[in-house]
Amino acid sequence: MTRRRQIYEGKAKILYEGPEPGTLIQYFKDDATAFNAQKKGTISGKGVLNNRISEHIFTMLGNIGVPTHFIRRLNMREQLIRQVEIIPIEVVVRNVAAGSIVKRLGIEEGLQLPRTIIEYYYKDDALGDPMIADEHIACFGWASQEEMHDIADMAIRVNDFLCGLFAGIGIRLVDFKLEFGRIWDNDFARVLLADEISPDGCRLWDIATGEKLDKDRFRQNLGGEVEAYQEIARRLGLLPEGADTTVLDMEQHRKKRDK
Amino acid sequence: MTRRRQIYEGKAKILYEGPEPGTLIQYFKDDATAFNAQKKGTISGKGVLNNRISEHIFTMLGNIGVPTHFIRRLNMREQLIRQVEIIPIEVVVRNVAAGSIVKRLGIEEGLQLPRTIIEYYYKDDALGDPMIADEHIACFGWASQEEMHDIADMAIRVNDFLCGLFAGIGIRLVDFKLEFGRIWDNDFARVLLADEISPDGCRLWDIATGEKLDKDRFRQNLGGEVEAYQEIARRLGLLPEGADTTVLDMEQHRKKRDK
Repeated sequence: MTRRRQIYEGKAKILYEGPEPGTLIQYFKDDATAFNAQKKGTISGKGVLNNRISEHIFTMLGNIGVPTHFIRRLNMREQLIRQVEIIPIEVVVRNVAAGSIVKRLGIEEGLQLPRTIIEYYYKDDALGDPMIADEHIACFGWASQEEMHDIADMAIRVNDFLCGLFAGIGIRLVDFKLEFGRIWDNDFARVLLADEISPDGCRLWDIATGEKLDKDRFRQNLGGEVEAYQEIARRLGLLPEGADTTVLDMEQHRKKRDK
Repeated sequence: MTRRRQIYEGKAKILYEGPEPGTLIQYFKDDATAFNAQKKGTISGKGVLNNRISEHIFTMLGNIGVPTHFIRRLNMREQLIRQVEIIPIEVVVRNVAAGSIVKRLGIEEGLQLPRTIIEYYYKDDALGDPMIADEHIACFGWASQEEMHDIADMAIRVNDFLCGLFAGIGIRLVDFKLEFGRIWDNDFARVLLADEISPDGCRLWDIATGEKLDKDRFRQNLGGEVEAYQEIARRLGLLPEGADTTVLDMEQHRKKRDK
């Protein structure tokens, strides 16, 4: 087999040409970055866990009728996805105050927001992903009014579903980031949920202890990153009960088995 | 006459108790600040000019049916206004890219925006007036949905009127800031345009030469601040044709005459 053509390398994932037109392979790296890539590191096994967690969540979202780019998981670190035109907007849904909003609006971390907030950020590393509003999106044509309507609707549906999913396993969904893309059916554009949903882009707090089980462990140098990601996977039923092997072991085990 | 009670001192204005309940006196200072008060200075005569310019604009806006807090000008530096509950949101209307949006979104100064943008900022000096969206306003109850609807409508009307007014005197209205307040009629809140409209809060470029005739002369150390403000007043027909006296002279002249 010839080496696949790389389409794009991001901070946590690589996209390769897919096996047929309109598809891509999304490869999950262990690289971790924070604060617009000013902090860099590696969380061994993160890519394997995020691939599995994101597969699980995207599959369930597809089942409730949220259209996504996900087709199927291929192996430990790769999934087959539909090729989309990425809409250059990061959609952040906040249920509880944490992260940038705490400093920006001077509110306390952990405050249950009176209403869920959807924020939009313009995806541009050089500009530090500035916050934008519908007005900017409409002005510069980053998405149509119809697309923004679909995006807000989907963001709320995803939030409702994930709040329930995580509440069921003792976890508070503080906030999360979504990305969307469009595909063309003839001249008609359709919006799909894209990227991934994993502890890299969600804030997940243990309801009982308040412990952070997400990338804030890395951002805030709390340690135990991979254990936190594993705990999420375990509670979601994606790791064998009582598994105490590291994910890396799992991956090596699988590699041996697959030989 | 006893000394009037001071209600509030801001960066460019002081509010005093008014002669009757529900009124205030708005006093225009010469103080100038920029970049969240990191840069401070004085523009001699600015207060006199802004009082006069703002009176003129608020009167005309009232005439086209935009409700404002303005009652009447009292003297060179003071106007009588209705006392309102200030809504803690700065509304910025942008027709052309300049100021913070240039850096934040990486666009060129002077770019005619494809559509007029309305931005909202949370009025909080300690936080540096962070940009917010409708979502944050609704979440924290800074204004009701109905009030935000009225505010957006009024902002568009004010923009249409001012674009015309300034175009008529050879000036390009690049952007401007508005503030709003609410008054209570029994249990019913009404939104009024408040604060001031002057070269302190507008970007005004000469159409022929591109020269900046607003507070950017102070922000960017271009010099000629008071001459720029005078030029706006002159073109608006508020200074005697060919007046070459400084505004301060005018004020002293008036004081002598009024004795």
